[in-house]
This record gives sequence, structure tokens and C-alpha cells, in this order.
Amino acid sequence: MKALIKITLKNGVLDPQGKAIEHALGSLGFSGVNEVRQGKLIELDLEANDAAAAKAEVERMCESLLANTVIENYSVELVS
Amino acid sequence: MKALIKITLKNGVLDPQGKAIEHALGSLGFSGVNEVRQGKLIELDLEANDAAAAKAEVERMCESLLANTVIENYSVELVS
Repeated sequence: MKALIKITLKNGVLDPQGKAIEHALGSLGFSGVNEVRQGKLIELDLEANDAAAAKAEVERMCESLLANTVIENYSVELVS
Repeated sequence: MKALIKITLKNGVLDPQGKAIEHALGSLGFSGVNEVRQGKLIELDLEANDAAAAKAEVERMCESLLANTVIENYSVELVS
């Protein structure tokens, strides 16, 4: 079973990497981009068979290691 | 219109950051994790109204700036 974790900065948290991408896109001539935010994508390959238990386990991983919950949001999606 | 871009390393490309996460999860007592791969998530806020044109534009952004297509795959998802 695979888990896909999306980690994004919370609203209001400055995102200098996103700003850099925004400016670079502007320099390359891409217009119409209002905002860019960069986050992280983590793919886990799990041995678990029970989807509910696996999701709870992955959420514990996010809380304790993968996401900084002071400034980041995370969402977990299971792909069988 | 928002676009969500998922950028992941191609299969076979070494992912030291993913390996580091894998070891850290093991050290924290999380078992049953076979593999971890880390990618990037980029959220764009676009002015475009035409979904097909916006998707094509975002794919051009990926090819020219956002993804290194030698070692990375990308996928674009539009969220209205």
C-alpha cells in the first residue's frame, strides 16, 4: 500500500522559495501567475494491509517527524 | 484557477533525502515502511479561465523551469 503525503505551508507563513519561482516565471515571460507556494510531497511504500490503521500510522509519522505542524499543514492519501 | 504540480524523481534515480526520512522513521520506531521517496509540490494561483489552455501553459512552465525532466516526472492537476 502506498501513502501520498502533501505538506504545505500554512496560510500567512512566508514562502521565499515560492516567491523565487514566481519571479523566475515572470522573467521567463509567463504572465497571469498570481501566487506560487511550494510544498513537499512524500511517498511512502507501506507493508500495512489495513487502510484505516495505515492512515493513522502515517498521521503519527507526520506529527512526529515529517511535518512541522506549527507552520505546515499535511494531508494523507492512501493509494492501494 | 489553481494548479497543483507534483514533481517526483524518476524510478531508478537515487533519493538520499527519501533514504534519510526512511532511516529517521525507523529510528523513531515506525516499522513496515519499505521505501520513502520525496518530491515537490507546487501550487500556482492562475488568472486563466480556460482550463485546457491553462494546463498547457503550466506544462510549459514545468518543461522550462519547474521540473528537471532528465531525472524528474511531473503531473499537473487543475483545481477550479
